[in-house]
Amino acid sequence: MPDWLPTLLATIAGILSTLSFVPQVIKAWRERDTKAISKHMYMVTVTAFVLWSSYGYLIGSWPVMIFNLLSLGLSATILVFKIRNDRRKAQGTQSHREPGLARPG
Amino acid sequence: MPDWLPTLLATIAGILSTLSFVPQVIKAWRERDTKAISKHMYMVTVTAFVLWSSYGYLIGSWPVMIFNLLSLGLSATILVFKIRNDRRKAQGTQSHREPGLARPG
Repeated sequence: MPDWLPTLLATIAGILSTLSFVPQVIKAWRERDTKAISKHMYMVTVTAFVLWSSYGYLIGSWPVMIFNLLSLGLSATILVFKIRNDRRKAQGTQSHREPGLARPG
Repeated sequence: MPDWLPTLLATIAGILSTLSFVPQVIKAWRERDTKAISKHMYMVTVTAFVLWSSYGYLIGSWPVMIFNLLSLGLSATILVFKIRNDRRKAQGTQSHREPGLARPG
């Protein structure tokens, strides 16, 4: 097995792992729809990428650090969209139910 | 810096990365709603985990291999839900539009 093969695999896998979030960011941005997306998934994912980035820093590997910081940024963006849309929806339902404000008819 | 710290960080990060998919699998299964989920994201994610699992095998690291095989299984499950729901929706809209079958009134 050539020495360079594992490094090549890890580099491609790292790039794909980071790039994989891009279509979800674009879709969530365009469609303003994050209903089916799990907030808990992205809370755990963001935490994991904080740890992976720290790991990259501790072992002095800037590729590990940079790929994971990019993934952290992208996954955190999706989490922000999710929280923002959930809040807007909650405010939307609340304004319908406030008796004082909503004048009948 | 203690020697064990990077290994501890990577182990926790690895566990979190894999576990992060579980709430999304449960949500997609319970709610049967995958509309906001990006199919392209999970196609790339599944490809990346195939490469990461192969990488783990090549470097003889069973933790890397096992974590990534689990992540592969979980992310592929979400992709299958997404494709299945999209197909059902497409069939649903098609059966409304077929002139021959849909008797007026």
